[in-house]
Amino acid sequence: MSGAAGESLARTVAGVEAVGDALAPALKARLDSLTKPPGSLGRLEALALALGRMQDTVKPRATPRAVLVFAADHGVALDGVSAYPREVTAQMVLNFLRGGAAVNVLARQADARLTVVDVGVDHDFGEPPPGLVIAKVRRGTDSIVRGPAMTRDEAVRALEAGIRVAEGCVADGVALIAAGDMGIGNTTPSAALTACFTGRPAAEVTGPGTGVAGEALARKVAAVERALAANRPDPADPVGALAAVGGLEIGAIAGAMLAAARHRVPVLVDGFISTAGALVACALCPAAAGYLIAAHRSAEPGHRAALAHLGLVPLLELDLRLGEGTGAVLAMHLAEAAVRVLDEMATFAAAGVSERDG
Amino acid sequence: MSGAAGESLARTVAGVEAVGDALAPALKARLDSLTKPPGSLGRLEALALALGRMQDTVKPRATPRAVLVFAADHGVALDGVSAYPREVTAQMVLNFLRGGAAVNVLARQADARLTVVDVGVDHDFGEPPPGLVIAKVRRGTDSIVRGPAMTRDEAVRALEAGIRVAEGCVADGVALIAAGDMGIGNTTPSAALTACFTGRPAAEVTGPGTGVAGEALARKVAAVERALAANRPDPADPVGALAAVGGLEIGAIAGAMLAAARHRVPVLVDGFISTAGALVACALCPAAAGYLIAAHRSAEPGHRAALAHLGLVPLLELDLRLGEGTGAVLAMHLAEAAVRVLDEMATFAAAGVSERDG
Repeated sequence: MSGAAGESLARTVAGVEAVGDALAPALKARLDSLTKPPGSLGRLEALALALGRMQDTVKPRATPRAVLVFAADHGVALDGVSAYPREVTAQMVLNFLRGGAAVNVLARQADARLTVVDVGVDHDFGEPPPGLVIAKVRRGTDSIVRGPAMTRDEAVRALEAGIRVAEGCVADGVALIAAGDMGIGNTTPSAALTACFTGRPAAEVTGPGTGVAGEALARKVAAVERALAANRPDPADPVGALAAVGGLEIGAIAGAMLAAARHRVPVLVDGFISTAGALVACALCPAAAGYLIAAHRSAEPGHRAALAHLGLVPLLELDLRLGEGTGAVLAMHLAEAAVRVLDEMATFAAAGVSERDG
Repeated sequence: MSGAAGESLARTVAGVEAVGDALAPALKARLDSLTKPPGSLGRLEALALALGRMQDTVKPRATPRAVLVFAADHGVALDGVSAYPREVTAQMVLNFLRGGAAVNVLARQADARLTVVDVGVDHDFGEPPPGLVIAKVRRGTDSIVRGPAMTRDEAVRALEAGIRVAEGCVADGVALIAAGDMGIGNTTPSAALTACFTGRPAAEVTGPGTGVAGEALARKVAAVERALAANRPDPADPVGALAAVGGLEIGAIAGAMLAAARHRVPVLVDGFISTAGALVACALCPAAAGYLIAAHRSAEPGHRAALAHLGLVPLLELDLRLGEGTGAVLAMHLAEAAVRVLDEMATFAAAGVSERDG
């Protein structure tokens, strides 16, 4: 940790309590009293139980909800690992602010408030308009192919930027957070972090991202291998690994997850980048995993290994590979459905419906 | 067909046009012009394309939407194939009308109007309250273990009850229909129909339903085998197969699907029973399959075979096994998301976002 700069991180990690079992029997009894065969709503019932345990209540909430999109640039994007030019990060931030991106559309549908957080975009947005938080640690990382992405101190500041923003959501009474990302090139550091924490080889966890294939994909795998060789990230030192081969938005996502866990606010994990953040968060604080819900499994091959490492089973599998929090926002409908089932369904007794024979 | 009673069915089947390809290039071009890597929204993009092709427009709609829950009783329920007593069918209809069942909760969340249709419940509901349509063909089927479920004429009338109700939705401008079921014992006829149309053995397509296991499950498999042996349903004669081993609500579901297809209204297919209805509908009119969207794969083992036979790939897999249309209603959120993405996202040109390199 880096002195005063690391205090908020240390306090957050220390403040996360493991999800408890105490309310599970009451939640289960309530679910089984409702007019449906026990367990017949499958994963929706499991989700209702999980949300109750996370929020430590028999009446979990799914509103109000927030989507946090953490944006940053990556030095490695200049090494030909992405199908898109690096300036798209800033252009997409502006698109988010005008409401035209996929995550805007889905957040409006899901009645979730969207906040964009600039933790390291290589662009000056000037006086931030509503919906944009400037928490810039630096204007993009250095290329992980040649050395560390950032200093250890910068990694801590990225984590703490995420903590601050999530604390703001908690203060606003947010019941559910979706964690998303924007950063051209960011599947490359995510693959490096996934390789680091899961122990899988680079070739197995590196995929097409926004659309590289053939020789460009081979170049991307080589970049991840070089990043791992040049930086030797240590999974036992998560802040060091983040500084070595990570990204600023990935650090902020990890920080937001830790702060949410500390305040018992469930986080819907989005795709590969968001899950890379979860790997960092849970390496720092294993109990934080108890507050994570895997929204979906993306088309990115490394996502499967990352989710398995965290013990998370995704709710949706729709071949999404966009990021931005899109999958996490889609899963908010399921979280709301789970909460409503628990809250609104009639019991066998109240409805006068006969229970099972025998 | 049965004279005047079969005219509406014949007209409906004859009126279904195959889903066309003409608009696919325009829909694809629109999707690829939006600010996301092409195809990165995966199955959501495929769903937007499918909805546009079904509705024959580049601006498909997902509202207003309706859930139709077809309810009926089954003679075979008195042969020990279900975990619940037969009077639960009528009790659950009353629960639907009071808004306390799972499908009510999920329909409210999805802003879908719910209509319950009594095609054969063994109960007199009197003057129907709002939300209940009485289209009773008879008070429950005969047990398929000993002979046909119903006469051929009754099967046609069940199909036509579904046609009438779906035509009402079309007249109201409904853009999307979810087809659900209520009927204690109805996984048994659904298994028999699935065996008939897919050619799979009874043991492979018969499952726990609302919760039978062990000896009771073996008894249920034996009941399906006896029903097939006693009635010899012919997949080349779908109305005859429905009369032989089907159910009144299954026939009505099939009819609703045919009428929706005739008017280019997409139908979200729910679980095992709803899919048994789809097997009947598509055997009568293969082009109707083009207007079906498989909402989810249920925990019932025969559902996989039925969906595969229809060439449908489910959107969700949440281990649901409740029926009522619950899975179909959950998938309405995805249909709305798909339509909104197509309609509301900014294009690369309008947002000033750079397109792919090279």
